[in-house]
Amino acid sequence: MPSEDLQIPLAFLDKISPRGLETIKKVKHFVETECIPADEVYLGQLSTDPATRWSVIPPIIEELKAKAQKLGLWNLFLCNNYEEYGAGFTNLEYGLMAQQLGRSHTGPEATNTAAPDTGNTELLVKYGSVYHKEKYLKPLLEGKIRSAFLMTEKGTSSSNALNICCSAVRKGDNFVLNGVKWFASGAGDPRAAVWLTMCQTAQGDLQGPAQYTKHSVLVLDVARALASGRAKVIRPLQVFGMDDAPHGHCEIVFDNYVVPVENAVLGSVGQGFEIIQSRLGPGRIHHCMRVIGLGEQALLHAYHRASNRKIAGDYLSNSETWRYAFGEHKITLEQCRMLVLNAAHAIDHYGVAKHAQRDIAMAKIVAPREVIKIVDWCIQVFGAEGVSQDTPLARMWMHSRTLRIADGPDESHLNQFSRNELRKLRYVNDAFAASDRKTKELIGAAKL
Amino acid sequence: MPSEDLQIPLAFLDKISPRGLETIKKVKHFVETECIPADEVYLGQLSTDPATRWSVIPPIIEELKAKAQKLGLWNLFLCNNYEEYGAGFTNLEYGLMAQQLGRSHTGPEATNTAAPDTGNTELLVKYGSVYHKEKYLKPLLEGKIRSAFLMTEKGTSSSNALNICCSAVRKGDNFVLNGVKWFASGAGDPRAAVWLTMCQTAQGDLQGPAQYTKHSVLVLDVARALASGRAKVIRPLQVFGMDDAPHGHCEIVFDNYVVPVENAVLGSVGQGFEIIQSRLGPGRIHHCMRVIGLGEQALLHAYHRASNRKIAGDYLSNSETWRYAFGEHKITLEQCRMLVLNAAHAIDHYGVAKHAQRDIAMAKIVAPREVIKIVDWCIQVFGAEGVSQDTPLARMWMHSRTLRIADGPDESHLNQFSRNELRKLRYVNDAFAASDRKTKELIGAAKL
Amino acid sequence: MPSEDLQIPLAFLDKISPRGLETIKKVKHFVETECIPADEVYLGQLSTDPATRWSVIPPIIEELKAKAQKLGLWNLFLCNNYEEYGAGFTNLEYGLMAQQLGRSHTGPEATNTAAPDTGNTELLVKYGSVYHKEKYLKPLLEGKIRSAFLMTEKGTSSSNALNICCSAVRKGDNFVLNGVKWFASGAGDPRAAVWLTMCQTAQGDLQGPAQYTKHSVLVLDVARALASGRAKVIRPLQVFGMDDAPHGHCEIVFDNYVVPVENAVLGSVGQGFEIIQSRLGPGRIHHCMRVIGLGEQALLHAYHRASNRKIAGDYLSNSETWRYAFGEHKITLEQCRMLVLNAAHAIDHYGVAKHAQRDIAMAKIVAPREVIKIVDWCIQVFGAEGVSQDTPLARMWMHSRTLRIADGPDESHLNQFSRNELRKLRYVNDAFAASDRKTKELIGAAKL
Amino acid sequence: MPSEDLQIPLAFLDKISPRGLETIKKVKHFVETECIPADEVYLGQLSTDPATRWSVIPPIIEELKAKAQKLGLWNLFLCNNYEEYGAGFTNLEYGLMAQQLGRSHTGPEATNTAAPDTGNTELLVKYGSVYHKEKYLKPLLEGKIRSAFLMTEKGTSSSNALNICCSAVRKGDNFVLNGVKWFASGAGDPRAAVWLTMCQTAQGDLQGPAQYTKHSVLVLDVARALASGRAKVIRPLQVFGMDDAPHGHCEIVFDNYVVPVENAVLGSVGQGFEIIQSRLGPGRIHHCMRVIGLGEQALLHAYHRASNRKIAGDYLSNSETWRYAFGEHKITLEQCRMLVLNAAHAIDHYGVAKHAQRDIAMAKIVAPREVIKIVDWCIQVFGAEGVSQDTPLARMWMHSRTLRIADGPDESHLNQFSRNELRKLRYVNDAFAASDRKTKELIGAAKL
Repeated sequence: MPSEDLQIPLAFLDKISPRGLETIKKVKHFVETECIPADEVYLGQLSTDPATRWSVIPPIIEELKAKAQKLGLWNLFLCNNYEEYGAGFTNLEYGLMAQQLGRSHTGPEATNTAAPDTGNTELLVKYGSVYHKEKYLKPLLEGKIRSAFLMTEKGTSSSNALNICCSAVRKGDNFVLNGVKWFASGAGDPRAAVWLTMCQTAQGDLQGPAQYTKHSVLVLDVARALASGRAKVIRPLQVFGMDDAPHGHCEIVFDNYVVPVENAVLGSVGQGFEIIQSRLGPGRIHHCMRVIGLGEQALLHAYHRASNRKIAGDYLSNSETWRYAFGEHKITLEQCRMLVLNAAHAIDHYGVAKHAQRDIAMAKIVAPREVIKIVDWCIQVFGAEGVSQDTPLARMWMHSRTLRIADGPDESHLNQFSRNELRKLRYVNDAFAASDRKTKELIGAAKL
Repeated sequence: MPSEDLQIPLAFLDKISPRGLETIKKVKHFVETECIPADEVYLGQLSTDPATRWSVIPPIIEELKAKAQKLGLWNLFLCNNYEEYGAGFTNLEYGLMAQQLGRSHTGPEATNTAAPDTGNTELLVKYGSVYHKEKYLKPLLEGKIRSAFLMTEKGTSSSNALNICCSAVRKGDNFVLNGVKWFASGAGDPRAAVWLTMCQTAQGDLQGPAQYTKHSVLVLDVARALASGRAKVIRPLQVFGMDDAPHGHCEIVFDNYVVPVENAVLGSVGQGFEIIQSRLGPGRIHHCMRVIGLGEQALLHAYHRASNRKIAGDYLSNSETWRYAFGEHKITLEQCRMLVLNAAHAIDHYGVAKHAQRDIAMAKIVAPREVIKIVDWCIQVFGAEGVSQDTPLARMWMHSRTLRIADGPDESHLNQFSRNELRKLRYVNDAFAASDRKTKELIGAAKL
Repeated sequence: MPSEDLQIPLAFLDKISPRGLETIKKVKHFVETECIPADEVYLGQLSTDPATRWSVIPPIIEELKAKAQKLGLWNLFLCNNYEEYGAGFTNLEYGLMAQQLGRSHTGPEATNTAAPDTGNTELLVKYGSVYHKEKYLKPLLEGKIRSAFLMTEKGTSSSNALNICCSAVRKGDNFVLNGVKWFASGAGDPRAAVWLTMCQTAQGDLQGPAQYTKHSVLVLDVARALASGRAKVIRPLQVFGMDDAPHGHCEIVFDNYVVPVENAVLGSVGQGFEIIQSRLGPGRIHHCMRVIGLGEQALLHAYHRASNRKIAGDYLSNSETWRYAFGEHKITLEQCRMLVLNAAHAIDHYGVAKHAQRDIAMAKIVAPREVIKIVDWCIQVFGAEGVSQDTPLARMWMHSRTLRIADGPDESHLNQFSRNELRKLRYVNDAFAASDRKTKELIGAAKL
Repeated sequence: MPSEDLQIPLAFLDKISPRGLETIKKVKHFVETECIPADEVYLGQLSTDPATRWSVIPPIIEELKAKAQKLGLWNLFLCNNYEEYGAGFTNLEYGLMAQQLGRSHTGPEATNTAAPDTGNTELLVKYGSVYHKEKYLKPLLEGKIRSAFLMTEKGTSSSNALNICCSAVRKGDNFVLNGVKWFASGAGDPRAAVWLTMCQTAQGDLQGPAQYTKHSVLVLDVARALASGRAKVIRPLQVFGMDDAPHGHCEIVFDNYVVPVENAVLGSVGQGFEIIQSRLGPGRIHHCMRVIGLGEQALLHAYHRASNRKIAGDYLSNSETWRYAFGEHKITLEQCRMLVLNAAHAIDHYGVAKHAQRDIAMAKIVAPREVIKIVDWCIQVFGAEGVSQDTPLARMWMHSRTLRIADGPDESHLNQFSRNELRKLRYVNDAFAASDRKTKELIGAAKL
C-alpha cells in the first residue's frame, strides 16, 4: 500500500494532491539517497579547532542545497497562503515532507527548510517592510543567509511571552535596547545576517488586555549590531554537551544598543505578542513531524543492528522482548503522526493556526516525549556504541529531548490545554442533574 | 466546532455523509436523554434472587428498544455491504455512533447493536442458509431473540483459532459434538435462541495450509440442544465478581450431542477459520469505539465529582495534578480515537477487513489498555464511592479490563503485529549498505 | 538461604528473634497447608441466597481458628507494648507473619489478625474502660465476636479526619448521634458486636489547635443500637461488584440515636483525632505486608499457569517477555518489602508510630499500587480464566485496588509526605550560596 | 534523626560502626565544602584545545587529593578483606560514603575512589605478582598513576564475558595480542600507566565448563605498549557528545603486540572469567550508590531552582504537580538505596560477592534506570538552562544513562536474574497439586 510506504495514515491520503504526493516521494528519495549518506560527511567537515569551530561551514551542505534546488525541493514549507513566495503545499503535505526531512541531520538545511529560518521567513513575508524583504527575505529564500530569533531570556520564564523583558526604550526616533537573550538558536552561524528580536517596547506595569501590546519584534542587522560593540555574542550554550556548531545556541547581551524605530516589524510597535503567536502553529507541526521521522529512522537503525547482532546464539531481532518493544514503538509513532497530521490539516482547514490550537497543543505535548523514549530504546539496543558518535542516535536523542523544552516546556502546554478543556465542561453539572431527574421519572414510572 | 462536540477528529469529518452526521447526533441525543438515565433503572430491575437471576429481563430495555426503533436508531451496525438488511452506514460512521452508545450500559442493546448479536447477525447474513435466515436472522434483526458465539474453550489457548478442539465428528448425515466451551457471552440470556459454535470438523494432525480447513461453524438451536440433555449450560462465569446477568458468560458442555450436517454454516465444512477471521474486523472497531465512549463518559463523571467536591478548601477540579491528569487523558482518548477511526476507514476503503488488519491490530491493542487506566483514575477521583455500585465506574473498569483479553489477549495481537512489521523491513540491510557506499563516495569526493 | 525462603531481606534478619523466626516459619506452613487449601472451601460455603447471605458464617473458618489457636498462631499482631494481651512480637516480626497470612483469603481471620478487629482491639487495649474491656476486648481476643470501625462518611472527604461530621451532641449525660457512615468494613458480619464510631462531639467552627479536639470515638453496642430503631444498617456497599459477605462494607444511618456519655473511649471526649492517628501506623504496615504476600502468591499462580500452558508450541514460562516481566515483578516486591519492613522496624525502634511516619507514608503509597500492577499482569497471564472465579486473582486485584483508597487515597498521603520533605529543605538555598562563594574563592585562587 | 540526614535507612544504622558513621559524616562534609564547589573549577581547567585536551590535568584535583589524604579520606573503598592495604570499612559503610561522593564530579577522584582504578586496585591486591604490586599497585594506592580496564570489544556482545575474543596466542614465553578494544574508560588519561586487559588465551571452540577457562587478564604496561607501535589508542569515543576528558573512553587496537607470559595475572592463564566475576560485585555497589547520591544532588538543584523561580506568580516549588513529583522521586531513591545497601550488606555478610549475586543484580537493574528519570525531571524543571553547561544536570544525566549499559545492559542482568528466580520455583507445581488435594479433602469432609 503506497500510503504505508510513505507513512501516510489512510485517513489523510485523500487530502493530498497528486503534486503533493509526488513531492513527498521525491523528498523521501532525496533524503535517503543524498542527505542521510551526507550526514556523516557534514559532521566530519566541522572544525574541531576552537579557533575555527564557528566559522567553517561544511562544504557538503552547499552541494546538497544545489541538488535540492535542482530537484525543486526548496522552500517547501511556505504553504498555500504564501504562494507568491513559496511552494504552495498545504501544511499537511509539507508536514509529510518534514517527516522525511527529519530523518537526516542535513535534510532540513539542504532544502532550506531549517528552523529558525522557516519561522523567520514566514514572519518577514507577512510583516516585513519592503526594505526588510529586499535585505533579508530575498537572500533567506535563496539560502544565501541565515537568521536567528532572539526570544528566550536568562532568568525569565520565557515560555510565557508576556514575561519577556529585554527592553527597547523609545528615545526620539530610536529604540535603546538592554537585556540578555540566550538560547538564540542559529546565532552562532557566520551566515546569520539578521536577528528577529522580541523586546518590550512599552514599559510600566501594564495589566489586562494592555499587557498584550507591550512587546514588539525588532529586525536587527547582525553586522551592524556586532560592529556597534553594544550587542555581543557572549558564548555558545551547550545542549547535553553538544554545541550544535556552526548553528549554535547563543547568549547575547544588549547594552544600550541603539536602533532606529523602523527596525520594528510592521514599522509599528506593540504587535510582538500577536506576531509570536501566529508564528508558533506551523513551526510546531514542522518540529513534530521531523521528530517523528527521526523516530522512524532511529527504529531502522535499531532493526539494522538487531538483525545483524547475535546475542546468546540468535539474532537480537528474533528476541521476543525486542520484537514486542519494536511493535509498540511503531504503534506509538502512528498515534503521534495522526495527532500531528490532524493538527496540520486543521491549520489548512481553518486557514489560521488559532483555530487549530487544541490539535497543535496535543501534538506538541505528545510527539517529542514519545520519540525520546523510542530513541532511548534504540540506544539501548546498540549498547555502548549507541551512546557514542558512531551512530546518530545520541545526537537524535539530544535533539528530541530539547524539543520538550523549546517553545515552552510540555508542562506549560499541558496546563493551558487542560484549562481550555475544562472550560468547555461547564454544562456537565446541569446535564448530570437533568439525567438524574430523568432517572427518577423512569423509576417512578416503573414503580421500582 | 461541531466535530469537537461529536468527538470527530477533523481529518474524518469530510468522510461522513450528511445522513451519517445527522444520525450520530441523534444517537448522541438518544444516549444522553434516554439510555444513560435508564442505566440505573435497568440494573435495579435485575433480579438478585438466584432463582430468577437468569430469567428476568429488565422491562425498561424493551421500552428503550421501542423508542430506538421509532427513531430509526436500529441495527445501525450493518454497514454498506449489507445494505439489504442494515442501515447502510460506513464503518467509520457507525464507529462514531458506537462511541456514543458505549457511554451507556443499555445503549447497545437498546439499539440492537450489542455484541455478540452484531457479529452473529453479520455471519448469518453472509453465510446463513435460507432456513437459518428465516429462523434466526429475522428475529435477531427484529430484536426478538438473542444469540451466543461459542468459541473459547477451557484449557485451550483459544486466542489462536487453530487450537480450538471441540470436536464435531461426522457420523453419516450428522455431527457428534464433544467438548467444553466457556466464556460463551450471552448464553445466559433466556432469549438466546441460537449458538454459533466453532468446532473442529476435520480430525487428525493437519499441518500447513490444511490446518486452516479443519474447523467449521455450526448453527445450534438452543432449545433443541438443551432438550437433548447432551448439551448443558454448566454455570455462569464471573468477570471480576460480576455475572453480567442476564447476559452471562457461560460454560457449556457437549457430550455426544448429535446434529444434522445442515447445521454447518454454508451447508459445508472447513470454512470455520475463514469465517472467524472475517468476523473480527468490524467487531473490534465496535468494541474499541464503545470503550472510547466509555472512557469519555468516565471523565465526565470525574469532572462532575471534582467540580462538586472540595478538598482542603478548594474544589478538586482546581487542583493542578487533577487538571494535568485530566488533560493527559483527553489527549490519550484522542489518540485512541484516531487509531480506531483510521482502522474503520480502512475497512470502508478497502472493502475488506483483511487489508485493514494492521490498523485494526493497533486499535485493538491500544484502546482498551488506555481506557482502563483512565477509568482507574476516575475511580481514584471518587475515592471509596468509586469502587462501589453508586457510580458506573467499577462496572466500566471491569468491562474495559476484559476487553484486553476478549478476542485474544493484547500480547497475541502485539506479537502478530510486530512480526508483520518486521517482515516489511527486510530491505533495510541493503538500504543501509547502499547508504554507506554513498557516504564513502562522498568522503572520497570531498577528500575528507 | 533461609532468609530468601521466608522472604526476609538480609538486612532485617538479625533483628528477628529466634522465637520470631520460628513463628514466621510456622505461620508460613499453616498458611500453605491449611489456609490456602481452605480458601475455596470458605468461598463455597458462603450463601448465595440473599436471604441468608449475611447470616451464614462458613463453618470452615471456625475449624481453621481452632487449628491456629492450638498452634499458638493467635493474636500475633499485638506487639511488645501490648505484651499482657498479645503475642509480644515486634512489628517487624509480625509484619513478616502478615506477609504470609496475606497469601490466603482465610489466613488473617483464621489467626484472629483480620482488620478491622486488629485496630479495634489495639484501641480497646489502650483506651478502653474496664467495662469495655470485659464486654468487647475479651471476646475479641478470643475470636468470639467481631467489630467494625465507623469512620468514613458519605459526602465527606473523610481522608482528612478533621472533616468527619457525624455529630454527637451532648444532652445531659447522653450523646445524641446523627449522621451517615459508610464503608464500615465488617459491619455486615452477624458476629459484629461493637462499632467504634468516630464522631464530632464539639460543635461550632473550631480553628487552630482546637479543631484537633472536636472529635471522640464512641463505643457502640451493636445489639442495642439496632434494637433502638435509631441506628440502621442501610445496605452493603459493593467493591468492584463484590459484597465481601459476610464481612461487608456497610452504610449506617444514625437518626437521633441516644447513648450515655460513658460510651466515649477513655470516658472523656475530644481525643478522637489523637486516637485515630495512633491507630494508623501498625495497621498500615499490616495491610502493606499482607498485600505484598498477596502479590507473591499471585506470582506463584502465574508461574503455575505459565509452566503448564503452551502457547505456540512452547510453555509460556519459556517466553522471554513473560520471564522479564516476572523478574521485574520480583524486584518490585523486594523493594516494596524493604520499604514496609523499614517502617515496621522504625515503629519498633522509636516505640511510637509517629516517628516512623515518614517510612509508613512511603510504604502506604508504594506497596498497594505496585501489587495491583503485578496482580493485573497475573490475570493477563491466565487470559479469560484470570478474570473469573476459577482463580483467586480477580478477588486479589479488587482487594489490592481498594487499598489505594482505604485509609485515605494515595494522593493525600503523597501530598502530606511531599510537604514534609520540602519543609526539611529550607537550608538548601543557604547551602547553595555558600557553595557558590567557595567556588568563586577557588576560581580566584586558581586565577582561572 | 541522624540517619535521615546522612540518608541511611534505619534498618542499616545498627550495622555501621562508630568509625564508619564518623567517616560518612566527614565524607559528606568534604564533598559539600570542598568537592562540589571545586567541580566547576575542575571543568573550567580542562583544555578546550584539541592539541592539549588529553594532556592537561586540572590542577585543582591535586589540591583536593591532598586535602582528602590529610583528612584520612583516602582509598576508602578497600573493604575489610583488604585490610592491609585499605581503609577497612564494610561494603555497607563504604557504600554510604560513595553515596556522598557521587554528588560531586570530583569527589571520587579526590578520594582515590574513582572507577576503574578501584576495581583494578582490588584485582592487583588479590591477584597481582610482587612485581605488579610494586610497579602498579603502590602508585595506584598513592594516587600517582591511573589505570584502565580493557574489556569491551568492538563488534562483540561483550556483556557476556565468554564472547570476548581479543586473542593472546602463546608463542614460546610470549603472548601475541590481536584485537580491538573500545570504551576503555580511563585510557585517555596521560597518567594511565597500566591496562588490565581481558584476552582469550585458549583458542579453539571450547564448550561446557572448558569455555570458562579460555580467558586471562594481562597486565600491560602502557608506556611499553605505546612505544612498541603495535598497540595504538585510536580515538576517544564520545558519550552523548561528551569525551569525558582527560579520563576518556578509548578505542585501542592490538596488532601482533608481543608480551611475556608473566604479564598474565597470577602468572598463569585461564582464570580471566573468574577474575572478571569477582571484580564485579563491589564495583556495581559503588556505581549504584554514587548514582543515588547523584540523584539526591540533582533533586537539591531542582528544589533550589523551583524555590527561586516564579511561574505565573508563584514559586514553582509551590506547584502541586512539582511537589508530588518531588515526593515520588524521594520515595524512589529510598527504595533504590535499600536495594543497594542490602546488596552491600550481603557481600559483607557472606564474605563473597557470589552469594550476594541476587541482591547485586536487582540493585544494578533498578538504581541507574530510576535515577535517570529523576535527573531528567530535574532538567525539565530548569527548562533550557537544564540542558546547558550552566548546571551539572546534563552531565549527570549522561553519566547515569551510560550506567544502564556499562557492565552489561540492564536486559542481560534482568534475563539472568529472571532465569535464576524461575529455577527456584520448580517446587511450585507440586505444591499446587498438594494444595488442591487438601482442598478436595476439606470439601469432602465438609460434604460441600
